[in-house]
Amino acid sequence: MGHDGPRVASLPDDSWIADIGPVDGLELVQWDLTGPPPREDIGLVVPPYLKPATLLAATAPLPALEAVQLLTAGYDGVREQLAEGVQVANAAGVHDASTAELAVALTLASLRRLPEFVLAQRRGEWLRPADLPSLADRRVLVLGYGSVGRAIARRLLPFEVELTAVASRAREGDDLVERVHGIDELPGLLPEQDVVIVVVPLTEATRTLVDMEFLARMRAGALLVNIARGPVADTGAIMRHVGRLRFALDVTDPEPLREDHPLWHAEGVLISPHTGGNTSAFRPRAVRLLREQLGRYAAGEPLANVVAPVEG
Amino acid sequence: MGHDGPRVASLPDDSWIADIGPVDGLELVQWDLTGPPPREDIGLVVPPYLKPATLLAATAPLPALEAVQLLTAGYDGVREQLAEGVQVANAAGVHDASTAELAVALTLASLRRLPEFVLAQRRGEWLRPADLPSLADRRVLVLGYGSVGRAIARRLLPFEVELTAVASRAREGDDLVERVHGIDELPGLLPEQDVVIVVVPLTEATRTLVDMEFLARMRAGALLVNIARGPVADTGAIMRHVGRLRFALDVTDPEPLREDHPLWHAEGVLISPHTGGNTSAFRPRAVRLLREQLGRYAAGEPLANVVAPVEG
Repeated sequence: MGHDGPRVASLPDDSWIADIGPVDGLELVQWDLTGPPPREDIGLVVPPYLKPATLLAATAPLPALEAVQLLTAGYDGVREQLAEGVQVANAAGVHDASTAELAVALTLASLRRLPEFVLAQRRGEWLRPADLPSLADRRVLVLGYGSVGRAIARRLLPFEVELTAVASRAREGDDLVERVHGIDELPGLLPEQDVVIVVVPLTEATRTLVDMEFLARMRAGALLVNIARGPVADTGAIMRHVGRLRFALDVTDPEPLREDHPLWHAEGVLISPHTGGNTSAFRPRAVRLLREQLGRYAAGEPLANVVAPVEG
Repeated sequence: MGHDGPRVASLPDDSWIADIGPVDGLELVQWDLTGPPPREDIGLVVPPYLKPATLLAATAPLPALEAVQLLTAGYDGVREQLAEGVQVANAAGVHDASTAELAVALTLASLRRLPEFVLAQRRGEWLRPADLPSLADRRVLVLGYGSVGRAIARRLLPFEVELTAVASRAREGDDLVERVHGIDELPGLLPEQDVVIVVVPLTEATRTLVDMEFLARMRAGALLVNIARGPVADTGAIMRHVGRLRFALDVTDPEPLREDHPLWHAEGVLISPHTGGNTSAFRPRAVRLLREQLGRYAAGEPLANVVAPVEG
């Protein structure tokens, strides 16, 4: 692409540069986008993890900017801050392990009644619960079968569950499930499930997907796990089904919940405060992705994870 | 064996007889061992799940008794109640799924700080914990590599852990681990682990295996999970390491814990009140085992799971 000398990429702080290590044919510089660019020949920018969209206007003075590599899977509002022709790659996959394991953690904790044991522990009470369910033999539906959904399915299978995967469109299965059902089949599938794990992206099509009708189709005593985004579920509908269903929610609407929100104290509801992706699993996977992407960039190869332009 | 007509086996209540269904060449009768035997030609007895050893003296009047099939994996004190030559088979494998999934549930809940979220939920507080660990990338040692240990390993592997298996003697690995380490290697292995899951049977060799020296070898911040038996760990030693280590205990010593026991309120300690095997996973697996064993008995074939005579 008519480049003299090594290409230049910026990372948000020196710890990233140290962790990534040298990349052949690429110079790595530190820039957190809060001040002006340290040099004008930066071709690829990795913005800080938090709120990249609000910072990316700082790339305007860069005549050679070709690509932005995000550390997040989401990229709402990012493209609008960039000059035309600048590629945007996201960090798809980097949060899969962390998010998938929380989905399984919430499922197991709720089924095996760990929240009740935690509260009994406070009282010094050795509970003798009857009729404890196991995850084994449960019918589990994973709603949203992208890379996190598959990571959840991979972790669930050894637990001797009957697994059903649902995506926006029906398609052939993979090494984990025989087939992937389309979301149009959901009304018929929901009444058979013991556990439904929601992991769809938030779009206009999935906003309040989990509504009164959805929850009414679930059988009494079944568990809904929301590891997606709060607004994918209608909080009012959840409140109406408290007692009949169980809930394990990493995300809520609104978020954070006010101190006096009734969801905090609803029976059979377990809430983890949006901790799906934010764990020790993030950093090594992000470093691995950046190493690969910067290698591609240095070699003039196409980046992976390039996200489509925002529609409309 | 000089038998006229179909053999006869007793089950503790009619629901077992209904669930097992007819067995060719075998008559099934109901007997819970609290009264005299309903017939004297019973050849195989399945005693009730709870406290079989205290009930088995009731089999003394049975001249044709050949075998006892337990519904438990443990068989302490059972043989002493039986006439010489009566075989004892245990229910090995029946609790594997339930126990293994609780081991993973406790591990995930403790690492991902679910107990803190449960308590914060009570206060209506949206916690923002920093430096949350994931199970992914953790070094996990499974101490005790029988059928439950293998069931735990199978469930852990998709979580992207580094798994080490330790049994009483070193041996070749299987489809899950490259090799099984011997317990003599434990002192060298413990300091490298983030999580140690104890699932050894309780014997004189394993009593207080988890003592001051064991815990002192574990690195600060590591998690000990006891899913074995309470007396495998020394409660005093656990209390001394509270704060430095984390603990998730399905079993304790003593058990149950008194209301005022300090372990209830120790920092970083999660206690589930001995709920490892007692879930919905038990019944279908027990029915499957009984169907197989009764079929073998009716056909004059050797029973599986025959346990060795108690030594010494």
